[in-house]
Amino acid sequence: MDAKALWQRYQDWLYFHEGLGLYLDISRMRFDDAFVESLQPKFDKAFADMAKLEKGAIANPDENRMVGHYWLRNPDLAPTPELTQEIVQTLEQIEAFAEKVHTGAIHPPKSSRFTDIISIGIGGSALGPQFVAEALAPDFPPLKIHFIDNSDPAGIDRVLSQLQNHLSSTLVLVISKSGGTPEPRNGMIEVKKAYAGQNLEFAKYAIAITGVDSNLDKVAKSENWLARFSMYDWVGGRTSEMSAVGLVPAALQGIDVRAMLDGAKEMDDATRVANLKNNPAALLALAWYFSGNGKGEKDMVVLPYKDSLLLFSRYLQQLVMESLGKEKDLDGKTVYQGIAVYGNKGSTDQHAYVQQLREGVPNFFATLIEVLEDRQGKSIEVDPGVTAGDYLSGFLLGTRQALYENNRDSITVSIPQVNARTVGALIALYERAVGLYASLVNVNAYHQPGVEAGKKAAAVILDLQKRVLEVLQKEQKALSITEVADKAGVADEVEAVYKILRHLHANNRGVVLTGDLAKPGSLTVSLG
Amino acid sequence: MDAKALWQRYQDWLYFHEGLGLYLDISRMRFDDAFVESLQPKFDKAFADMAKLEKGAIANPDENRMVGHYWLRNPDLAPTPELTQEIVQTLEQIEAFAEKVHTGAIHPPKSSRFTDIISIGIGGSALGPQFVAEALAPDFPPLKIHFIDNSDPAGIDRVLSQLQNHLSSTLVLVISKSGGTPEPRNGMIEVKKAYAGQNLEFAKYAIAITGVDSNLDKVAKSENWLARFSMYDWVGGRTSEMSAVGLVPAALQGIDVRAMLDGAKEMDDATRVANLKNNPAALLALAWYFSGNGKGEKDMVVLPYKDSLLLFSRYLQQLVMESLGKEKDLDGKTVYQGIAVYGNKGSTDQHAYVQQLREGVPNFFATLIEVLEDRQGKSIEVDPGVTAGDYLSGFLLGTRQALYENNRDSITVSIPQVNARTVGALIALYERAVGLYASLVNVNAYHQPGVEAGKKAAAVILDLQKRVLEVLQKEQKALSITEVADKAGVADEVEAVYKILRHLHANNRGVVLTGDLAKPGSLTVSLG
Repeated sequence: MDAKALWQRYQDWLYFHEGLGLYLDISRMRFDDAFVESLQPKFDKAFADMAKLEKGAIANPDENRMVGHYWLRNPDLAPTPELTQEIVQTLEQIEAFAEKVHTGAIHPPKSSRFTDIISIGIGGSALGPQFVAEALAPDFPPLKIHFIDNSDPAGIDRVLSQLQNHLSSTLVLVISKSGGTPEPRNGMIEVKKAYAGQNLEFAKYAIAITGVDSNLDKVAKSENWLARFSMYDWVGGRTSEMSAVGLVPAALQGIDVRAMLDGAKEMDDATRVANLKNNPAALLALAWYFSGNGKGEKDMVVLPYKDSLLLFSRYLQQLVMESLGKEKDLDGKTVYQGIAVYGNKGSTDQHAYVQQLREGVPNFFATLIEVLEDRQGKSIEVDPGVTAGDYLSGFLLGTRQALYENNRDSITVSIPQVNARTVGALIALYERAVGLYASLVNVNAYHQPGVEAGKKAAAVILDLQKRVLEVLQKEQKALSITEVADKAGVADEVEAVYKILRHLHANNRGVVLTGDLAKPGSLTVSLG
Repeated sequence: MDAKALWQRYQDWLYFHEGLGLYLDISRMRFDDAFVESLQPKFDKAFADMAKLEKGAIANPDENRMVGHYWLRNPDLAPTPELTQEIVQTLEQIEAFAEKVHTGAIHPPKSSRFTDIISIGIGGSALGPQFVAEALAPDFPPLKIHFIDNSDPAGIDRVLSQLQNHLSSTLVLVISKSGGTPEPRNGMIEVKKAYAGQNLEFAKYAIAITGVDSNLDKVAKSENWLARFSMYDWVGGRTSEMSAVGLVPAALQGIDVRAMLDGAKEMDDATRVANLKNNPAALLALAWYFSGNGKGEKDMVVLPYKDSLLLFSRYLQQLVMESLGKEKDLDGKTVYQGIAVYGNKGSTDQHAYVQQLREGVPNFFATLIEVLEDRQGKSIEVDPGVTAGDYLSGFLLGTRQALYENNRDSITVSIPQVNARTVGALIALYERAVGLYASLVNVNAYHQPGVEAGKKAAAVILDLQKRVLEVLQKEQKALSITEVADKAGVADEVEAVYKILRHLHANNRGVVLTGDLAKPGSLTVSLG
């Protein structure tokens, strides 16, 4: 395509949202009109599915739940007046609470202000708050946030060690819908112990963000925690940034949560339009479908040219891959769907893996995110007439062009600046694109059977550990790994038994492995 | 394969390095003996290539350079006594310098100790230091490091704003081999200005890590900077962690750089063995080749189950993708090689994209990294007899098993703990695996033509910006975008001209766009 035709194609497909100042350009995806036409019936269905979802249809049949994250930013859309009121009230409570923490009306027992937050949560209860903190927190936030998003003892120790002198002014958010997910539960137990170790009454520092009447909610209630906020069963973890999960930490950090909600609402309005060319989420879904042939054949590489958007790709990894990465379609057919997502930031990555993007395996399409405003205030010149921001812009444009010339497709999203409104809009844009794409490829975007299976698989290992320890305690003599497995009644699990024993051995848990470590089959094990 | 056969396979293929306590398990990659045999001739060649490389062969013909990162941890291997001496002396200088900074013998003009570091570098001059800082820096390091790894004005502003009260005790590392790479150059100019703004003499805070007689070296010399350390032309950016690039920031943070070098040396010794089954790097290369059919058909997903190894996947993204992602092979044949790498950490990601790994598109193989020691010191129980670390271990084992049962292959690397020696060993392991794999697929792992092309593409855009501004200054009247492009003699670049103007407009650079922003073709532009 010559330059003139390409410029025409650019203008023909350019989407612009005036209120948000957001541009979406899919002109560098090489689809043609026939392809677009062929998808029209699928889009008609996708728009209809989405309208039903927004009206409260049970869109997550596995869990018999509605899917209502769109209502969070436009409570009037909620299917009942009670829900509308609950959303509005929760937001007011969050703002009032944050205000009181900021003014010191709510303060820790032994000092006048809270200074830090430990946020304990995993998956949807961590990635949104992390992305938003990195993108939007002021340079000197009223409270500084620290995350415990794993069951890693050393990781927990690091956070607690770095905060050891501030624990008496540190709020703890425990974010878990059921309260039963092991990682946040383990994190909470470890953090609680650290507070006890400093003679601090944990309840005076702790906030629960959880489902009503969950185990966590009951504990928080009975121990009289500082505050409790509700997670709704109609908001999935990966779309929970605009619920209390995201809003409480954001508000505490001084981020304008109303603006974030407004940006998302504006984008929701724009992506509700049942017309492909006027709907930016539909355009994204179209581009994804085209690139991966509706089967995820190409990876989505996300490259924001802006440091503060560094975690957007990690956020999208969860949103896209957990929603779309499914074995079965809605008809029960085995499809192995999904789109792999990765990325980091430009122009930084041009000095790393962009080498492969430009020249290597053509197994991806890129999404370049441009932020038009370089910084607040004026820039100095680094060359005559040229600023550091001009370079950044030049890197983006140059890379987009080079990718195209090398037959690598790309999408470009441009926003005027990184602020609460545009971040809210970006989240909403991708939430809707994922929902529409899921309809196009006929999968349930709102469940995650593999995650549940992962929890169960770990439980099986822990059960095995218990049995193995029982055998060792009972036998009180050195055994081979195979003997341990046999006696535990798990002859088929020798390898898992070995690994469990190796882990216990490495942590001085009373298990001693003797022999040549290079030859697991030759080892003997005993209680030391 | 039944459990017994699988346990046998596990033992048959298990690699164990006694000195490092490191295990490598590729038993869950489904290759068979015939496949291994078929690769033997390629491996023979790869081992021979590697031996030549280590002896100083010109392995980067594009740049007529040797590739000597292996010499950094075993200087006796360097091809000349002068090089050996230079490596040894540089290390001593680095340690002596860090020691003086720590004791205060070297201190800033207006206070007794340096407290912080701003490290300015991109690509290989950032990713290694970032990974190592995250993995190894003590909780309260003698100097706290902050990175400027981009040309993003807002990102630079954030680092400088957060340090505004500490600038007078902040060291600045400027890391750039040529001194001409725009991002670090721009970062340096901006940071220099900030120091000037606080009446601080930049040279008293600045350290150059650069090639001898580079532009940066000359500036540092003439301005009498605090220190200068050499980058060698025989060390590529992505393998420079054990050169001054990585060692200076590590030593300043109190990381044991000798231990890191020792770990790498031990691993280099182990991966020099010209025998597939006894060489962990060769085993990795074998597994990669098998999985992606020698063409990168599958992505490498890297999942360390340890918070402090979070950035390992980002480090590997550069090391693997920049080395292997090549259009041409060594015979000039178009091959579009590479392996896409992404990842984050477990078990965190089990609540995100691991849903897709377990159930969705089978377009990847996983690398699970296990750290046997959970933490320093004892753990509390979170359930009877169970620690948070047992959960983490259970998640890893459960996920490995589930992936295997779903026909997704995986590699497991186990290390006893995260420390300077094991991190050095991991880096060395992957460096060598990449080198061997490059031989297997016949590409040059040591150049990066796409990165150079990216720099040029940006320069073209900046040149266009200059021409466009000249036209506007000359014409002094409103023009359409097409007219601007025509008059600038770049009628084929209308779209780039439009984007340049839009960026200047957004940054109040004297360019005003008038009209309907949704219709770029209809806009007029003038100097405001």
